[in-house]
Amino acid sequence: MNKPARTAEAEAEAVLKANQAFYDAMETGDLAALEALWLSGPQAASVTTVHPGWPVLRGRDEVLRSYALIMANTEYIQFFLTDVEVGVAGDTALLSCTENILSSNPGEGDGTVGNLIGGLVVATNVFRRTPAGWRLWSHHGSPVMAGEDDEDDEDDE
Amino acid sequence: MNKPARTAEAEAEAVLKANQAFYDAMETGDLAALEALWLSGPQAASVTTVHPGWPVLRGRDEVLRSYALIMANTEYIQFFLTDVEVGVAGDTALLSCTENILSSNPGEGDGTVGNLIGGLVVATNVFRRTPAGWRLWSHHGSPVMAGEDDEDDEDDE
Repeated sequence: MNKPARTAEAEAEAVLKANQAFYDAMETGDLAALEALWLSGPQAASVTTVHPGWPVLRGRDEVLRSYALIMANTEYIQFFLTDVEVGVAGDTALLSCTENILSSNPGEGDGTVGNLIGGLVVATNVFRRTPAGWRLWSHHGSPVMAGEDDEDDEDDE
Repeated sequence: MNKPARTAEAEAEAVLKANQAFYDAMETGDLAALEALWLSGPQAASVTTVHPGWPVLRGRDEVLRSYALIMANTEYIQFFLTDVEVGVAGDTALLSCTENILSSNPGEGDGTVGNLIGGLVVATNVFRRTPAGWRLWSHHGSPVMAGEDDEDDEDDE
């Protein structure tokens, strides 16, 4: 690292920005932007992704292929991120958030869009610091089942 | 780090051992062993866990409380880990695996165990190197939906 030491807040801010760029790329279907955000080089082989309900995908190529496939089958997708928290330790950042998703499948080919679907996904995103900025090393998203207990801290503490 | 540099294989081996100890502690219901495996100190607040279908839990205390709860409600659990892969970058390790789970809920209180349940979960486990060894920073487990495409590499490549 040949940059001056930055405050923890500035670090976290930079991770949040990379994370937002990741979801923005998904929303706009910008595969090139998405590719640029994923770790390349020596760690490319250890890149992993778990899409909700999917088995694990490993390696930069397989991960990016899955995103190309998802983008091709998604007419519209919007992420409202809530509950975003970042921890930074050395050159790694651990970010967790809730993805409030609104999406639709492709329509009937007549210019209409398919049915809108709402979804709730929790994600753990791991970033590595590189000379070019923070890059995604791992994404794991999973569905949140309805009926889970809400945070009970308010009730019993 | 005041230890001599170790080979990448020895590093990965140490991570695999910590990971196995994590699942062993779950199997034996050894909460003390489990607690010792989770990161403490400055990064304790950024510890996260997502159990299958659950929202994200944050902070060492909340995470450990969830394991105590799960252990109290689990009569029997066994993990057969498959497809285990580790990537190490600096002081962080990223491990993914498939948990083939056999478990049962508590029985009727007459000494019998409840029904055995099989489950398939994919996990992303993040470890940090500490002077005492590799410690868990994050665990994210999610159910694998049946009917997903199997790996298609054999068919089309």
